[in-house]
Amino acid sequence: MLTVLARSRFAEEQILPLASARSAGSQLPYRDQSLAVSLLEPDAFSDVQLALFSAGGSISKTFGPQAVEQGAIVIDNSSAFRMDPDVPLIVPEINASAITQHQGIIANPNCSTIIMVLALAPLRAFGLKEVVVSTYQAVSGAGQKAIEELRNQQVDPNLAAGPSFPYRIADNVLPFVDCFVDGGHTREELKMILETRKILELPELLVRCTCVRVPVERAHSEAISVTVERPITVEQARSLFAETPGLVLEDDPTSHRYPMPLSASGRDAVGVGRVRQPEQRSDQLDFWLSGDQLLKGAALNAVQIAERLHP
Amino acid sequence: MLTVLARSRFAEEQILPLASARSAGSQLPYRDQSLAVSLLEPDAFSDVQLALFSAGGSISKTFGPQAVEQGAIVIDNSSAFRMDPDVPLIVPEINASAITQHQGIIANPNCSTIIMVLALAPLRAFGLKEVVVSTYQAVSGAGQKAIEELRNQQVDPNLAAGPSFPYRIADNVLPFVDCFVDGGHTREELKMILETRKILELPELLVRCTCVRVPVERAHSEAISVTVERPITVEQARSLFAETPGLVLEDDPTSHRYPMPLSASGRDAVGVGRVRQPEQRSDQLDFWLSGDQLLKGAALNAVQIAERLHP
Repeated sequence: MLTVLARSRFAEEQILPLASARSAGSQLPYRDQSLAVSLLEPDAFSDVQLALFSAGGSISKTFGPQAVEQGAIVIDNSSAFRMDPDVPLIVPEINASAITQHQGIIANPNCSTIIMVLALAPLRAFGLKEVVVSTYQAVSGAGQKAIEELRNQQVDPNLAAGPSFPYRIADNVLPFVDCFVDGGHTREELKMILETRKILELPELLVRCTCVRVPVERAHSEAISVTVERPITVEQARSLFAETPGLVLEDDPTSHRYPMPLSASGRDAVGVGRVRQPEQRSDQLDFWLSGDQLLKGAALNAVQIAERLHP
Repeated sequence: MLTVLARSRFAEEQILPLASARSAGSQLPYRDQSLAVSLLEPDAFSDVQLALFSAGGSISKTFGPQAVEQGAIVIDNSSAFRMDPDVPLIVPEINASAITQHQGIIANPNCSTIIMVLALAPLRAFGLKEVVVSTYQAVSGAGQKAIEELRNQQVDPNLAAGPSFPYRIADNVLPFVDCFVDGGHTREELKMILETRKILELPELLVRCTCVRVPVERAHSEAISVTVERPITVEQARSLFAETPGLVLEDDPTSHRYPMPLSASGRDAVGVGRVRQPEQRSDQLDFWLSGDQLLKGAALNAVQIAERLHP
């Protein structure tokens, strides 16, 4: 978040890092300065104009409304408020105009959802009917400790699992992200289904989703198959993707150009490629995405929302 | 292949390993013996009843028909004859009866296809209409050298890619298996589409497929979404899967029981789980598979075909 702020239009503003007692008092590097971390307290927001929350749902639920009461606008990275009808859920390239409806809190969507909707949004022009998505999600989505877990397991095949994942993640894939909920879905899958409908303003959109953790450090990938109402060609889809802000078209199989975590990591733009169509089906389109879930999937999107608030 | 033969009903038969001049003369361990590798020559099959080919399409095309002329029945692991209308394409649990139509050559299907059709076959009872599949394919599908490549990259983040994959595969996923063909699909994807139709005897079945290589040593996984003509429940699907030979139902999210490469590696049965349904869609079903592509996806299926030939 600080790295993204440092290259945003807020770079020169005063930044106040807040954290629990465990981290309060420590220093964080920011540009050529060092920022002192203050304690997250109920009255910590009295001088704050804009508060970026990224410490989990329960912290957001407790301190978010307090920050609003003290006059701050909250941009929340947790899932606490995303499906609240009074809270705009924003991907600026898609629904920036909905920001103005905020009542103090604006929600930043789920990382896999942001990456996907960037490519789905332009397809609404063809009458988006059904989406089937399988994800290939990096371990860093489970936190810094998960990266160390993967690294340690990669060099030691006998290392036991844990604590970030229930099984070894090196040399394995897990059809499980977040936690299981009723009906057999994971919460991550429900987020992708419900948040996509809200962001795209398509409450009836059929979204089928399988969320999978893969032994990759950074950047999520997604295999997406859509069905639309009106005929579309591969060339039309490629042109649409190429001109969509936030996306970069990487689609030249003959020279092995396609999106992958290796090239998406550390990059703002989400890569889209492998655009193709089942034979004789002009109502269907298949493609592949890779995007840095820590940048566009999280911190970058949050800061972009802030930039739209204060243009 | 030898490991599977050693536990088959052919264990006590005479085994004659054939290879190119590079390997001829070497010894291969087999049970408590050592087998001398002979040179693969045009007249090498004169005393052979059953020939298992697993050396690539061009070797099969050259030597397969010669073996048949000399009186052998050929079970071919390559893709050379799979779509030939005169060649049965067999997964014994599904279409063993088609074996009898052979004219000397029987084809063993693509590894990802075998794993998938085991679960699709019982769903034909509900009128299988459409299949969307995303694969998570292990590097051993690209050969022994690919495993070493992954291992070396895992311990050295600066190691350059190659020769098995065009980019690093450690910490990466590649939406690319085999090679690209016209229309933007990979050949692996076309195999899954066309072979599935032939094995299931559903020539019109719509199959949409994205084949992806992941940094896993062994066992392929697949996220599958199907649409059927007649209503199905999750419980019906679970019961069907549980009683299907070749499958094992691993579906208990609350105790973190689901298929994954870690548990599927080295096991004959293909694991199926994460069975679920979009809300209010009794014509749709989503599930997840993991299966050892070197066993059921290749050697085991070939030897099972042989066992059906000589019951």
